[in-house]
Amino acid sequence: MMHAASSKERYEGLLCALGDTREGGCTYGEAMVVGIMVQSIASLNYINYQLLVINFNADTPGAPRQWWFGGGTDLTPAYIFEDDVKHFHSVQKGACDKFDASFYPRFKKWCDDYFYIKHRDERRGLGGIFFDDLNDYDQEMLLSFSTECANSVIPAYIPIIEKRKDTPFTDEHKAWQQLRRGRYVEFNLVYDRGTTFGLKTGGRIESILVSLPLSARWEYDHQPVEGSEEWKLLDACINPKEWIC
Amino acid sequence: MMHAASSKERYEGLLCALGDTREGGCTYGEAMVVGIMVQSIASLNYINYQLLVINFNADTPGAPRQWWFGGGTDLTPAYIFEDDVKHFHSVQKGACDKFDASFYPRFKKWCDDYFYIKHRDERRGLGGIFFDDLNDYDQEMLLSFSTECANSVIPAYIPIIEKRKDTPFTDEHKAWQQLRRGRYVEFNLVYDRGTTFGLKTGGRIESILVSLPLSARWEYDHQPVEGSEEWKLLDACINPKEWIC
Repeated sequence: MMHAASSKERYEGLLCALGDTREGGCTYGEAMVVGIMVQSIASLNYINYQLLVINFNADTPGAPRQWWFGGGTDLTPAYIFEDDVKHFHSVQKGACDKFDASFYPRFKKWCDDYFYIKHRDERRGLGGIFFDDLNDYDQEMLLSFSTECANSVIPAYIPIIEKRKDTPFTDEHKAWQQLRRGRYVEFNLVYDRGTTFGLKTGGRIESILVSLPLSARWEYDHQPVEGSEEWKLLDACINPKEWIC
Repeated sequence: MMHAASSKERYEGLLCALGDTREGGCTYGEAMVVGIMVQSIASLNYINYQLLVINFNADTPGAPRQWWFGGGTDLTPAYIFEDDVKHFHSVQKGACDKFDASFYPRFKKWCDDYFYIKHRDERRGLGGIFFDDLNDYDQEMLLSFSTECANSVIPAYIPIIEKRKDTPFTDEHKAWQQLRRGRYVEFNLVYDRGTTFGLKTGGRIESILVSLPLSARWEYDHQPVEGSEEWKLLDACINPKEWIC
């Protein structure tokens, strides 16, 4: 599955959130939003990069203007294939390093902190990079950086799918994958900034919830056996790892 | 599946929410909580009745004391079997009418209003009865009433399961049922008072999320064909009906 989500509602919601209720009082200027969700049995990947620009009374010189970049991509497999995770993070690091050596560690940690399911004390997956409200660099530089990040998703993710798409799996593997998708649903509905914001401000619901998985599962008090492959994945979600040195 | 959820965490959360942070400053006196979730292909039913009593400094005469009853039961089938829905609501009305003729219409509407998925503008199912923060009657009377309601769930629901448990179903029926379970998940994680409260106050997560279904499904922009059985169910979720006259 692959989706691109429109963002008109998000702007309207943002304008509303920023407290500007004047008739025709604000317009938004430029935008680049792309949201892609790719799912397979091997793994699940979410990408979303955007530039948000809000002009208040754009025709008035000196009127307030706000802009920021936000985006990220994270890998949420049901099982750890260490080579895959290292590959994914390496490509993200490569994109970051072209701009600033501090970017990968900073945005890797931001990703681990952001995709955190507080009520479970675990992350939804194995991370990647993430940033939001970013405007502490030149706008052109951040646009190039976001574009580089967006372009890095295909080489980071598609080789994993190609490598794993025919990997055989049992009903038990599938049930565990579905359980992890349940965690993904919990994160998106309870914590994701864009989703919770969209739900509160009455945007187009099919766009807001486009990143929910096709199917998900819940089991009462499910505990993977210590040392099992399921346990290793959960452990990495609870204790984020440095995948590349 | 049948679960009973404990409630110690909920009290602790409630005490915290009520702003009482004094060491040993408050105790709770009495409690009756029962939460049962029954799922089958035919239908899904949730029941939860409770009396909450909070004593602040119980040993001090005249110290503030708060109590209320809350509870309800609602029917969330994937398809409408009109006889079943009428039977379910009739039994609920019978329990209510033993106490006050105003109860069924009042708590039926409260149920329709409560199990409302705002971002979809639809209810999660076909309703039943619901009330919360109820203390405008004598405590003994409300305890009898809640007990009557709890006892009414078996005769309201089990005959439906017995009648429908062997009804054949296709993959399409199952997919639609799973889609409705997705709505159930959305309601519980985003709106349910007990769930959202529990997530915020850090209670025991397996108790708080015990009412989530075993599995659920999401499809982008799914629209049932007008006039179809799926459409009829959705229509009844959007426009709550009076099932008994």
